Amino acid sequence: MTEVPTLAGVSTERRERILELLGQMTLEEKLAQIVGFWEKEDGEAVAPLQGEFGAPTNLAQFTRHGLGHLTRVYGTRPIEAAERARWLWEFQRGLVTGTRLGIPAIVHEECLTGLSAWKAATFPTPLAWGATFDPELVERMAAGIGESMRALGVHQGLAPVLDVVRDPRWGRVEECIAEDPYLVGTIGTGYVRGLQSQGVHATLKHFVGYSASRAGRNFAPVSAGAREVADVLLVPFELAILDGGARSVMHSYAEIDGVPVAADRGLLTGVLRDLWGFEGPVVGDYFSVAFLHQLHHVAADLGDAAVQALTAGVDIELPTGDAYLAPLAEAVRAGRVDEALVDRAVLRVLRQKLELGLLDATFAEEPPGGVDLDSPEHRAIARRLAEESVVLLRNDGVLPLAAARRIAVIGPNADRPAALFGCYSFLNHVLAQHPGVDAGIAVPTVLGALRAELGAVSFSAGCGVDDADRSGFDAAVAAATEAEVAVLVMGDQAGLFGRGTVGEGCDRDDLELPGVQRDLVEAVLATGTPTVLVLITGRPYAVGWAMRRCAAVVQAFFPGEEGAGAVAGVLSGRINPSGRLPVSLPRAAGAQPYSYLHVALGEGDEVTSLATTPAAPFGFGLSYTTFDYGDLTVPEEVPTDGELTVSVRVTNTGSVAGDDVVQLYGHDLVGSVTRPVAQLLGYRRVHLAPGRSVTVRFTVPTARLAFSDRTYTRVVEPGEVELWVGTSARREAQARTVLVGPIWPITVDCPRWTRTELPPLA
Amino acid sequence: MTEVPTLAGVSTERRERILELLGQMTLEEKLAQIVGFWEKEDGEAVAPLQGEFGAPTNLAQFTRHGLGHLTRVYGTRPIEAAERARWLWEFQRGLVTGTRLGIPAIVHEECLTGLSAWKAATFPTPLAWGATFDPELVERMAAGIGESMRALGVHQGLAPVLDVVRDPRWGRVEECIAEDPYLVGTIGTGYVRGLQSQGVHATLKHFVGYSASRAGRNFAPVSAGAREVADVLLVPFELAILDGGARSVMHSYAEIDGVPVAADRGLLTGVLRDLWGFEGPVVGDYFSVAFLHQLHHVAADLGDAAVQALTAGVDIELPTGDAYLAPLAEAVRAGRVDEALVDRAVLRVLRQKLELGLLDATFAEEPPGGVDLDSPEHRAIARRLAEESVVLLRNDGVLPLAAARRIAVIGPNADRPAALFGCYSFLNHVLAQHPGVDAGIAVPTVLGALRAELGAVSFSAGCGVDDADRSGFDAAVAAATEAEVAVLVMGDQAGLFGRGTVGEGCDRDDLELPGVQRDLVEAVLATGTPTVLVLITGRPYAVGWAMRRCAAVVQAFFPGEEGAGAVAGVLSGRINPSGRLPVSLPRAAGAQPYSYLHVALGEGDEVTSLATTPAAPFGFGLSYTTFDYGDLTVPEEVPTDGELTVSVRVTNTGSVAGDDVVQLYGHDLVGSVTRPVAQLLGYRRVHLAPGRSVTVRFTVPTARLAFSDRTYTRVVEPGEVELWVGTSARREAQARTVLVGPIWPITVDCPRWTRTELPPLA
Repeated sequence: MTEVPTLAGVSTERRERILELLGQMTLEEKLAQIVGFWEKEDGEAVAPLQGEFGAPTNLAQFTRHGLGHLTRVYGTRPIEAAERARWLWEFQRGLVTGTRLGIPAIVHEECLTGLSAWKAATFPTPLAWGATFDPELVERMAAGIGESMRALGVHQGLAPVLDVVRDPRWGRVEECIAEDPYLVGTIGTGYVRGLQSQGVHATLKHFVGYSASRAGRNFAPVSAGAREVADVLLVPFELAILDGGARSVMHSYAEIDGVPVAADRGLLTGVLRDLWGFEGPVVGDYFSVAFLHQLHHVAADLGDAAVQALTAGVDIELPTGDAYLAPLAEAVRAGRVDEALVDRAVLRVLRQKLELGLLDATFAEEPPGGVDLDSPEHRAIARRLAEESVVLLRNDGVLPLAAARRIAVIGPNADRPAALFGCYSFLNHVLAQHPGVDAGIAVPTVLGALRAELGAVSFSAGCGVDDADRSGFDAAVAAATEAEVAVLVMGDQAGLFGRGTVGEGCDRDDLELPGVQRDLVEAVLATGTPTVLVLITGRPYAVGWAMRRCAAVVQAFFPGEEGAGAVAGVLSGRINPSGRLPVSLPRAAGAQPYSYLHVALGEGDEVTSLATTPAAPFGFGLSYTTFDYGDLTVPEEVPTDGELTVSVRVTNTGSVAGDDVVQLYGHDLVGSVTRPVAQLLGYRRVHLAPGRSVTVRFTVPTARLAFSDRTYTRVVEPGEVELWVGTSARREAQARTVLVGPIWPITVDCPRWTRTELPPLA
Repeated sequence: MTEVPTLAGVSTERRERILELLGQMTLEEKLAQIVGFWEKEDGEAVAPLQGEFGAPTNLAQFTRHGLGHLTRVYGTRPIEAAERARWLWEFQRGLVTGTRLGIPAIVHEECLTGLSAWKAATFPTPLAWGATFDPELVERMAAGIGESMRALGVHQGLAPVLDVVRDPRWGRVEECIAEDPYLVGTIGTGYVRGLQSQGVHATLKHFVGYSASRAGRNFAPVSAGAREVADVLLVPFELAILDGGARSVMHSYAEIDGVPVAADRGLLTGVLRDLWGFEGPVVGDYFSVAFLHQLHHVAADLGDAAVQALTAGVDIELPTGDAYLAPLAEAVRAGRVDEALVDRAVLRVLRQKLELGLLDATFAEEPPGGVDLDSPEHRAIARRLAEESVVLLRNDGVLPLAAARRIAVIGPNADRPAALFGCYSFLNHVLAQHPGVDAGIAVPTVLGALRAELGAVSFSAGCGVDDADRSGFDAAVAAATEAEVAVLVMGDQAGLFGRGTVGEGCDRDDLELPGVQRDLVEAVLATGTPTVLVLITGRPYAVGWAMRRCAAVVQAFFPGEEGAGAVAGVLSGRINPSGRLPVSLPRAAGAQPYSYLHVALGEGDEVTSLATTPAAPFGFGLSYTTFDYGDLTVPEEVPTDGELTVSVRVTNTGSVAGDDVVQLYGHDLVGSVTRPVAQLLGYRRVHLAPGRSVTVRFTVPTARLAFSDRTYTRVVEPGEVELWVGTSARREAQARTVLVGPIWPITVDCPRWTRTELPPLA
């Protein structure tokens, strides 16, 4: 007998209700609950290999037995939300009144950088969230997104992406938060809390391993051992489930060491449910159940694929029912799979619908009319996120720019709204295929924002993002020659499957700026005019050369609808930059994969001619003021099952106010397995007026230093730990503590978060 | 109680003898048997971080308790072998007569491309062996090497390298045989058989994982799961132990998923001994026991390192006793490790010494006088290996060169003997540090060989191997302009730790030709003179651009002392090229890692913008004649525990005689885990006169299709298998068979080799 979901926390009455519902269901009604329906129009292509699958078109026929999920109601075409809501309410009423059991569908939608809907607020991309080191602000953003979703009848958002960045060649890096699992986990948990505070269920994705694909190629196999999976890749999911209470998980397309996650019971059931106690539904990434047959070739047909995925623990097939409808029905009837496994999945869906209030919903009320999806509150959050995310990488003093200077603005990303958004923004995901349709939201460009801030500047695009056309170089060079400062706004265009320089399916085997952009920068540098390079990108590029030669370098990861003002504000000095690199700035494509979280032999050059020291380390970022750290206090020893309390006094020693991101790193000197030479243990953003100090107190649970030992038990081992408070992950031992006591096997109940406290300003 | 080595196959009498010897030993005498001594001179640096370790200098003091291994007697300085042999015999006599137990030392030496000794024959590098697809010839080479070693009193050779190529950025790729584990295993087994036929023990290295280091950086951690280790990386070792009877294994420096192999009991004892029944000693790579403390930081001190390595199954510490002498003695006396583990290692050494006849040796006989280490027989083998290894990658008809043509020879590798050898050749390993000392063997250069073959040609180096000097470009371009054909001889200089462009510790993050070589090729191409590019390298470079633009491209992997004649013979047409690529010719450094042995999602571009299709596939190589394949016969079905018999008729359809390498590939269509889209199942080199045919019959044991299933059991699963006989790994399904019957768990007793038969010529 297959286990029944625990239904823990569900009252006896409600438990009986869903078990009774299940008891009434035919097999077809059950299967209808564990698939989605995608009411799609021709020419909408927003998922991999979508064209390989027939799209069901007869909605009434398809939903006659009910429906689990309704797929992407708002997010695939430019249509007024109110109009779409009317359709949706009517559709849900149809399920309530027109099907035997009367259960409405869960409506899910993409929402990574804002609800994927026309005219909805579009926030910075996750790498920018990572750069803020500000989970509370990300939580506020997600609450704003959730509010819009809830208003429009969307119950589940397919975000956040908790893949830990492992290789910048991968196009989906821009959907990720950082290369440190704790930063990913804490920022991601902020997102989950925000979204779910509005009654919208978050979906953690892509569980797990997707970001570690070979050579950064989308869908390529993952060569990773069980320890790397447990200690790096699973960590953010653990945080967001155990601490964030995330309600749903989407598995990844990846295969790890030969086993596709969609068919991996050890991960989907062993880790997720047996170890972590997760009780929500696992949804499949789009088409991924079928991909077990079609791409991974571990299933002989769709029925086999369905059996494997269901058995492993994939509850819901999305976007529709290629494998979980007829092929699974046949497998159940032929006895190739226990119907109890179908029941298990159905119970999880019914429980979720119960929690969402759907089992009592009638949709008799009027659908929402005019909902402002881009309210001033949304824009204020978008602005602050953007402002906190801009990273100043180099400054020889040219910044901030004086208003009186003659400034030449150059570059393909200076005057394009689309340059400010990620691949899953409505603008780049959908409107890119609807030329001429208005963005629906106000999107100042960097050029416009600079003019607003600094007055007249000249402008010349110089080149495109990713073509070979150099015909604009002469004009750009002439403009630079005449100027006192050249501001080059370069970078990416996000897109899908080869239609962008970054984004889903837009992987690269080099990490130079796309197209002829580097040549344009070099041509401008050759004029001798001091050059400020502004990068608006979705991945970190190998720009060590520019770090050495430009007067200043500013890195913005797609900063969203208010991003132009944030960039302009940093250039003008109105905003004191405070973003920190959430990823290492790579040395070269050929030096990948690289992570700051490496063991002793992962970077140095004692035994190789090839050092991989990045152009700038994780955590790095400059300010217009300076911060000093002092009075570092560290306990002499800490029990292995205890907490490590570290305090440090931070002083703004410069002449302007600013935010610092205080970063605490540790290095476990000897472990039973190899340990990273630097590991982020905690961080805290602080604001300080000039001359002011604050003492930041970190309380680090020792579980932050846990790892999988030789037996794959997660433990804290006794021994020495180096500690430092720094401005980046660059190792800089300042103090040591000793963990004392027995080896401590940690459990899911252990504290995992570093708490930070700020006593009153001194 | 720790297990005692089985001593299987040892007669009762001899068994009692070594147990009695062990019983007489003090702890110091035991430890002396499990370490080496390196009688080294100042300035000899041939191992990583060697400078970190004090070299013991007082030989008498060091060996007063006896000695397990004597390290590198011949291979680290240019000294006459006969003189060194006299020293060695005297040293061994000293052990026999001057120590209590009177046991001589095992003498080990490097011998990868020939015995590492001054004036010894130096053969092609292992990538060239791979290119020959001729294990019998490699066996003859190794027999020649073994003969020289035995004559000089060397008992154990530190070869072959059985690391499967996983990333061409790694500098030690030139020491490897191929990127296919079966090709590595069969060629490597040939080496083992040849060496051991002379009574010299082979040492399989580096067990295991070394070649899969992150980003191809030497010593960098390996991200690999247990399945990739079992199904790819361990395969050659399994073949060479179970089928080749290899007598010793050297573990690798690598860590896999956090655990250094030197401390991994699961691999060193679980796989090697419990699964495979290996009974020989495991020797440590140089300094690697200490590296557990110093580089991996999994041991708190040298004593801890010794305990971990000994417990895991490292029997002998090399090159000397940093951890296994005083630190291990202290650990034993303090009860931190069971002395029975020391006994286990000592018994393995004593057994090996017994097998080598050392327990009865007196060294009373005269040492050998003049041994010809580079006899005509050696040179004949070196010549044939080189000839079979040269790969013709492209030919628009310019080759073979007519003798009458005006030919300009250009390039840094055209007239340098050192260009023909690998990193572990005596020339590059040792003589590079002794400028002015004669090579001691005759080494024609390509230029010399071309002049001998074709008469007068002009010559101009044009540039160095790896510098920025373009001052020679003008002369080279002028020479090319005046010529009818330009022959550009480019490539690598092997060296150690940054002193070469390839070799140990010479890793790269790009795969362009080193230095300004590509620019020189482009400058010559710009003259319009038809250009033949000859690459003499230790790794495959990303030369797709040259494949498109040069009239011909010839790839030689360091072809050894007779290599120049082989290259010249191919250019002139005296030799019909028959080498085949043992590695994929890469697309770009940023597209790494890549292996031809990839699953469906490992190469295509359905879901990524980034195809990784290599510039030329594994197995590819052209000929001056053409071969046709016909009459492919494949059984309709085969039992899962059976043999698959495939025959194909090969016809030389051109006008000159030539060798073809007939390659049989398979593709398991559906597996319980993901399977590669192409897998070499068997190969056979055949020689055919023009117009002649032969039928090659492959008998493939189904175990060739085995893999680790979801439970990590190696099995053959029923199902369809596509098959093709091709000229490369490029998938080209021609036939199908069906494996029928139950899932078959294979054991160490299963046949693993594909047999090939050639009926009489038709």
